[in-house]
Amino acid sequence: MTGNAADLVARHRPTLDAALAAIRTRTFFSHFPEQVKAYPPERSAAAKSWFDAALGGRFPLEQPGTDGEVGGERSPYGFELGITYPHADIDALLPAMAAGIPAWQDAGAEVRAAVCTEILTQLNELSFEVSYAAMHTTGQAFGMAFQAAGPHAQDRGLEAVAYGYSALSTHVSQAVWEKPQGSRPPVRLVKKWVAAPRGIALVVGCNTFPTWNGYPGLFASLVTGNPVLVKPHPSAILPLALTVRAARRVLAQAGFDPNLVALAAEDPHEHLARTLALRPEVRLIDFTGSNEFGDWLERNAVQAQVFTEKAGVNTIVVDSFEPDQYTAALDHLAFSLSLYTAQMCTSPQNLLVPRGGVPVGGELKSFEQFGADLAAAVEKLLGDDARAAAVLGAVVNPFIVERLALAQGVGKTVLASRPVRHPEFPEATVRTPLIAAVDAADGSVYEHEWFGPVSFLIATDDTAHSIELYRRTVSQHGALTSAVYSTDEAVIAAAEEATWQAGANLSINLTGPVYMNQSAGFSDYHGTGLNPAANATYTDHAFVASRFRFVQSRRPA
Amino acid sequence: MTGNAADLVARHRPTLDAALAAIRTRTFFSHFPEQVKAYPPERSAAAKSWFDAALGGRFPLEQPGTDGEVGGERSPYGFELGITYPHADIDALLPAMAAGIPAWQDAGAEVRAAVCTEILTQLNELSFEVSYAAMHTTGQAFGMAFQAAGPHAQDRGLEAVAYGYSALSTHVSQAVWEKPQGSRPPVRLVKKWVAAPRGIALVVGCNTFPTWNGYPGLFASLVTGNPVLVKPHPSAILPLALTVRAARRVLAQAGFDPNLVALAAEDPHEHLARTLALRPEVRLIDFTGSNEFGDWLERNAVQAQVFTEKAGVNTIVVDSFEPDQYTAALDHLAFSLSLYTAQMCTSPQNLLVPRGGVPVGGELKSFEQFGADLAAAVEKLLGDDARAAAVLGAVVNPFIVERLALAQGVGKTVLASRPVRHPEFPEATVRTPLIAAVDAADGSVYEHEWFGPVSFLIATDDTAHSIELYRRTVSQHGALTSAVYSTDEAVIAAAEEATWQAGANLSINLTGPVYMNQSAGFSDYHGTGLNPAANATYTDHAFVASRFRFVQSRRPA
Repeated sequence: MTGNAADLVARHRPTLDAALAAIRTRTFFSHFPEQVKAYPPERSAAAKSWFDAALGGRFPLEQPGTDGEVGGERSPYGFELGITYPHADIDALLPAMAAGIPAWQDAGAEVRAAVCTEILTQLNELSFEVSYAAMHTTGQAFGMAFQAAGPHAQDRGLEAVAYGYSALSTHVSQAVWEKPQGSRPPVRLVKKWVAAPRGIALVVGCNTFPTWNGYPGLFASLVTGNPVLVKPHPSAILPLALTVRAARRVLAQAGFDPNLVALAAEDPHEHLARTLALRPEVRLIDFTGSNEFGDWLERNAVQAQVFTEKAGVNTIVVDSFEPDQYTAALDHLAFSLSLYTAQMCTSPQNLLVPRGGVPVGGELKSFEQFGADLAAAVEKLLGDDARAAAVLGAVVNPFIVERLALAQGVGKTVLASRPVRHPEFPEATVRTPLIAAVDAADGSVYEHEWFGPVSFLIATDDTAHSIELYRRTVSQHGALTSAVYSTDEAVIAAAEEATWQAGANLSINLTGPVYMNQSAGFSDYHGTGLNPAANATYTDHAFVASRFRFVQSRRPA
Repeated sequence: MTGNAADLVARHRPTLDAALAAIRTRTFFSHFPEQVKAYPPERSAAAKSWFDAALGGRFPLEQPGTDGEVGGERSPYGFELGITYPHADIDALLPAMAAGIPAWQDAGAEVRAAVCTEILTQLNELSFEVSYAAMHTTGQAFGMAFQAAGPHAQDRGLEAVAYGYSALSTHVSQAVWEKPQGSRPPVRLVKKWVAAPRGIALVVGCNTFPTWNGYPGLFASLVTGNPVLVKPHPSAILPLALTVRAARRVLAQAGFDPNLVALAAEDPHEHLARTLALRPEVRLIDFTGSNEFGDWLERNAVQAQVFTEKAGVNTIVVDSFEPDQYTAALDHLAFSLSLYTAQMCTSPQNLLVPRGGVPVGGELKSFEQFGADLAAAVEKLLGDDARAAAVLGAVVNPFIVERLALAQGVGKTVLASRPVRHPEFPEATVRTPLIAAVDAADGSVYEHEWFGPVSFLIATDDTAHSIELYRRTVSQHGALTSAVYSTDEAVIAAAEEATWQAGANLSINLTGPVYMNQSAGFSDYHGTGLNPAANATYTDHAFVASRFRFVQSRRPA
């Protein structure tokens, strides 16, 4: 162990122990503060200056096997980033990455966990830089970008480190095995076990949450001994380029090969992920994105263990409300439907509402009234353009606007989408949500994902019908999240039973500052792997245990 | 929990705790005694009587959706079993199996572990019946069949139960999560987690070790909440039919649906595994057998998590011997090459020997002399027909004899195979091993598996060449086991380094009663999943953790 590595173990062991405790107790735990005000006040301005200076330039990243420069990111707030990144010659880069494996493997779980924690710690120092990078690639408002791309992503990374360390530490690394032989002397063997990495890990990043969705796989693979090649979405390179550069610096400082983490920025039309995913050296793949490519990976990258997070139809069963909760629930739902223009893989899409109406105390709100009340709550939330922009952020790509146009012709529009003028970035495309009412019979409308701010009020026969529809549509078409609103414990229990089968984590009667869209590191799972929206969860032992293999030797004692 | 289930928990909790400790300490542990003499002496004769009476009859097994009878097993000792088994109407059986899931899931990990342990305990009571069934389907000699199909398989099953329980118990099932909100009151959510099974699990049995290779997957899937459909090899149905019947009886006694475990016996030409493997209800598959079908499963059964154990080229690096160990090592190797006619997926095939010879103390044994000495050790071991039959057992299928005929024309025959007359079963096909000398350049000969008693002395430039060849051939073509014989610690260290990459568990300088062919439950891994011979190991957390998914609900406290 280098002196630096020993220092890192001493420094980060308490953090690792706290994280290991948190994944067992699943009570609230956060290592990286989520509030901007927890950080030195000068950091934001310094990061903004860095970002402005970075525009139009070459991102400094030295890694082997570079054969040119690529770029092409455009901020959803309306300007070209103009930043270029080294383009990798894969035939040179992959062997260079593999060369670092033996020393990284030999370092052992505790050193690797400490080095990974140091990478996350240095990323935390860079939270504002990463946030500006995330804001101008994902379209998130700055406040959301700070939390999601910064501390929340870092906490998810630390969670993956803790799970990896836990999986690596399930048994001794050496033992004397003594088998009785009756009257003869026992057989005694000395046995040794090594946790061997699988090979090169590929992280295929997404456009909307490049770090939050990228860090679990990145750190799960790295802590278990694998080099990690990060292939960002061509529209969201900068947040991951910052990440890779920080990781390489920490690895080198700790005495390891910096090529254990590398960037594979691509030309937008190169389909590099497809090429990389079939390379025999690539043995682990983490992907967030479309069903189409996720399914392709699962079917074709058979030389690798593939972890996918894809699309689904996140669903809410609306049954009944306490009178004093109705307004709070509608405001809460309005925020869920609006946050980041519902460009979250966890945003709700399908609201299953009895066509006979929704009891609120003694009063029955008709299906139409419920829709009008929900629409009014959204309009209230987004009535002011400045506040609307802070909630909605910007539209991440033109498909969202096309989908909104298409949704205008579907069912009965309960709430129309409108453009919002962003007070700071007039070129940004900002849109409010559209809500359409359809019937449960219109499965062809709502049984697939409308990524973005389109949701459906779906008229069902009654709540039992809603729950059955929830179970069936989520089982068949996938979902990462679900919710139920009911004053009836029997309905809640039935929704839970459906959830155990459909596998979309359930939020019950939420009205407070935690939304169904949000999962908290160290406590909430993100996805389950039980339905088509994902084949894994962030983070459990199944997410880490197959990223390495125990290999053993044995000899007479 | 039924009274019976509570009793089982009380009875088996100490066994589970001991098994949980063993998988962490990896010292010697065995729950089911491996010695025949540990069992009541009358059991063997009673089981023999049962077996004789079972021949030619209908195996009594009541399960839903039966549409006829199939059979066709023939003992490798030279007679037809003539036993028929119910043939399943899969469209009726699969839904019946799924119906048992909710109660089995709700029972929780501890009850399921106790019920699984009770199944294993009742299988232990049936060890002699299972052994006669295994002997007359696999061709193993009775002594080996007793250990491998009986207590050793049961211990492997218990190991899988312990791992499954461990994975299910990694965190609390309920927690209050309280997030500080600065000056405002904290957010408090009550969270609940359920371990949900994946769906129906399919176990595809093999001909040579139907229970030893079948129990890890069977019990790993069952303890994690999944129903298990057992599809035996058409030539080795009886051991698994006994297993399924015992499991169904225990499940029913404990108050669960017996259809949680069912048999899918097939007509030999039905290719039922292929049909079952693509059923959408089947979400887990455990397979032992050919590379061809294993690779097909990995590529095609993408709706399921597939665990495969296939073929490889188990390899021995021969470097040097201490003079007082040479004879013991040759006798030991002779046994490894002969045991069960080398019809084990762990039997050695490739012996890498420097063409310049093997130092034994001050003396250099030439390549030819080493071959002659090894051949003499095999001849000594198998010189007496009765003892030979007890070591070799019977040839399991005609392909072995064809392969021996083919091997006669390969390289230089160092030891020819000969037929042995079995003293008790004169109709049995019994063959001694063939050893051929080839050159390292003859990769086309030795870079694929010759399943059965064919091994190669491969002349290499030197031990460094041997180790590089070992690393490369095993990485490319797979192996479950490997060995090195050397007096030089540097050679041993280099062999270990190669092993960490090639992933075939290494035995070093073994001469005693533990052979490279053998892996001990609770301590040795079987396969690693790092090379093409297997994509998993018996048993680690990666083998169990993805057999279930955590699903959660959360609500305001």
